[in-house]
Amino acid sequence: MPTAVEKLEPVLRYYQTNADQFVEGLKRFLSIQSISTLPQYKQSVREAAEFVANELRAIKMDAVRIIEADSHNALVYGEWLGAPNKPTLLIYGHYDVQPADPLQEWTTPPFEAGVRNGNIYARGAADDKGQTWLLLKAVEGFLKTDGRLPINIKFLIEGEEEIGSTYIQQFVTENRELVKSDAALICDTEMFAPDLPTIITGLRGLLYTEIECRVARQDLHSGGYGGAAHNPFQALAEIITGLKDAQGRIHIDGFYDKVAAPSATELSAWKALPFDEAEFLRDQIGGTAIVGEPGYDVLHRIYARPSLDVHGMPGGFAGEGAKTVIPASARAKISMRLVPNMEPQEIIEAFKKRVAELTPKGAQTEVTILSASSAMVVSTENKFVKTMAEAMEQVFGKPTVYVRCGGSIPLAAALSDRLKIPVVMAGFGLPDDNCHAPNEKLNLSNFHRGIEAVAHYFMELAR
Amino acid sequence: MPTAVEKLEPVLRYYQTNADQFVEGLKRFLSIQSISTLPQYKQSVREAAEFVANELRAIKMDAVRIIEADSHNALVYGEWLGAPNKPTLLIYGHYDVQPADPLQEWTTPPFEAGVRNGNIYARGAADDKGQTWLLLKAVEGFLKTDGRLPINIKFLIEGEEEIGSTYIQQFVTENRELVKSDAALICDTEMFAPDLPTIITGLRGLLYTEIECRVARQDLHSGGYGGAAHNPFQALAEIITGLKDAQGRIHIDGFYDKVAAPSATELSAWKALPFDEAEFLRDQIGGTAIVGEPGYDVLHRIYARPSLDVHGMPGGFAGEGAKTVIPASARAKISMRLVPNMEPQEIIEAFKKRVAELTPKGAQTEVTILSASSAMVVSTENKFVKTMAEAMEQVFGKPTVYVRCGGSIPLAAALSDRLKIPVVMAGFGLPDDNCHAPNEKLNLSNFHRGIEAVAHYFMELAR
Repeated sequence: MPTAVEKLEPVLRYYQTNADQFVEGLKRFLSIQSISTLPQYKQSVREAAEFVANELRAIKMDAVRIIEADSHNALVYGEWLGAPNKPTLLIYGHYDVQPADPLQEWTTPPFEAGVRNGNIYARGAADDKGQTWLLLKAVEGFLKTDGRLPINIKFLIEGEEEIGSTYIQQFVTENRELVKSDAALICDTEMFAPDLPTIITGLRGLLYTEIECRVARQDLHSGGYGGAAHNPFQALAEIITGLKDAQGRIHIDGFYDKVAAPSATELSAWKALPFDEAEFLRDQIGGTAIVGEPGYDVLHRIYARPSLDVHGMPGGFAGEGAKTVIPASARAKISMRLVPNMEPQEIIEAFKKRVAELTPKGAQTEVTILSASSAMVVSTENKFVKTMAEAMEQVFGKPTVYVRCGGSIPLAAALSDRLKIPVVMAGFGLPDDNCHAPNEKLNLSNFHRGIEAVAHYFMELAR
Repeated sequence: MPTAVEKLEPVLRYYQTNADQFVEGLKRFLSIQSISTLPQYKQSVREAAEFVANELRAIKMDAVRIIEADSHNALVYGEWLGAPNKPTLLIYGHYDVQPADPLQEWTTPPFEAGVRNGNIYARGAADDKGQTWLLLKAVEGFLKTDGRLPINIKFLIEGEEEIGSTYIQQFVTENRELVKSDAALICDTEMFAPDLPTIITGLRGLLYTEIECRVARQDLHSGGYGGAAHNPFQALAEIITGLKDAQGRIHIDGFYDKVAAPSATELSAWKALPFDEAEFLRDQIGGTAIVGEPGYDVLHRIYARPSLDVHGMPGGFAGEGAKTVIPASARAKISMRLVPNMEPQEIIEAFKKRVAELTPKGAQTEVTILSASSAMVVSTENKFVKTMAEAMEQVFGKPTVYVRCGGSIPLAAALSDRLKIPVVMAGFGLPDDNCHAPNEKLNLSNFHRGIEAVAHYFMELAR
């Protein structure tokens, strides 16, 4: 009987032969403007779902279908279950992307992928079309060379990750038999540093809110009312500075009460990582000072402390030049990242209460919750995690590091907490990939090595 | 010899006969989208200038011309100087308007004037196309019936009032002979209450600024950076709450030092006005509390105390839904209303210094000054002022009240301070005209009575 490595050889050869075609296919995927948060792109979001379904059919997955969801973006499902007595792996990805503005800061247009210096640049290159594509291509290698997979695979690809994954969280809890698996694999994260294979052992949750603040029935002229009427931006500024102080400490009643401290092992592992605050500030932020909650170092704050950020303040006059309006109302888009064991519902209540407290006399505020998801952690001792760490070591030639991620993948929390499916998060992005920002990219060497690593993982799981 | 009133009769008859045509002409003027602050409307702003020049020619003014101003919007000039030994009156108006957003709040489109309940609704109806039109129509009555005017008139109509009147202020100081007059008449203000003829004896100045706050080289993902990177909206909120406290007191070094207190006579006249704070709050603001500097009542604050307002905070994600961006930079549009004897240049320096002080570590701010103009006051003892008060009393049947206006007309300050030309500010708008807001209107009865009052004024000045 041939060894695992011998059986993998034709698959790896297939990857090499088709490397350019993989990138061309990815470019087509990246050209679809599937921005889930903007209603005017609804048609493009749908087009992306169909693109993924067609690709799953093309690579010969079975039972491929678009799962319609009234008033939600469709899920795409496909399976190959021809390996009895072998593990079943649920593979998750998302075909939706963040908005691309500010457009003028992109070197090449966000939806016309450009290849420069070994990277592919486009909205969604890393988050998450490039990494979803990598998983499809890894599977394609087996099905096109051997006609079969070493393990059972279920793909579940969604189109709402960037707007909170509301529907898929509900779907997996209501369709436990369909998604039943021994483990889930998600490639929607990044490596800690170039060439350093990385597994994510924890994610922060996300609570996205919008505060609307109203002070008048209609917009007022600042000449006739300035000094007598309230100003909604002034009120929101008072609320924002009341929610978080200049030192970065969040002032919401009970906010930190349930925060779980990372273990001593985790803390010392983070300290051992190749991380330099000055380099982080210079190369990744491009700023002049690191700002944040006192008493915790940067990685601890990002991995395991909750945070609060303002993303935009719509309202009033935002054009060029001068308009002397006191707007009747204005809004603040504010989100919080949550860590284990914070309960989103409790934080929502505490946030609303605090905003009400901070609302000055003469202003009315209303808080809308756009999405809410918990944080999650996985054990490094889980065999599906350990096997993926080994598979990446084989391809990248370095020991895999275990870190957390400050971002949020709502489905990961749902699978882990509600379905008790261990979630393996192994991503091939890099810290400077500009996810959610202009000039998003994915390193193409990581893309190709990622495909190989996933192939090794399938083989190892099959043993 | 016929009395003044007898001579006015054919003119008044002309006004009555042509009342509907005056409104039709105004509708055409209002249909031009001459929004001076938005570059994409440059062509419409020019069209409005030509519209005014053509109208001045049509009513038989002499020496009508468009005064080109490189990189500024043109002035429109016209004169009639056939009354030797009679006073010369400079008549000022502006053909530019404020932006019309938020568009969805207009009952009828902002540039398709609609007449409802005796009012004409459109952007610029009161501020200032309707009132500029009224002055042209008053003059037309004399020239079309008698072929001459009782006094000498110079029209100077600009297209930059809503963006700070930068060019016209320079023009009048450099062309003193052309604009030389015994007095100036401006109809760009409102009556204190319906049917109450009103002369404005003071205006606040305006200092319009924009603060840009930068914290990073490029936009960042709040998952990966929240808790470590600064947030420009948070920094701007800290700056805004530092500039003005929750009680409405402005904290800029020396800001109140030169503020001139109104005279006891003015203060008691304001107290005698038909003004009720609860009604003002309910009917004009439509809010739940009046907010402002402690120790001063509302009219005092609006007329004679400086104020500070935030008009918009562009940057980050302002669309619908959720985007978890920490923007690299954000801006705050902030203006201050200045009162006599505050020096704009001194306040600019103090404002910049205070913003720098308030800028937190890790943020860089840059202040841009978009426009600056002084406050001004005129004496109620001036004969041109008194005569206008009498002319309005004749038409409206009530004694004219003298109040100040919290708004700013930069040219009024320039004419008064630099050219020593007394400025008569008599407007026919109403407090609920929604200037600078959706559903701007002008009461048509005031429009027609305003024309008559101006005709009476010309006759009285000719005696």
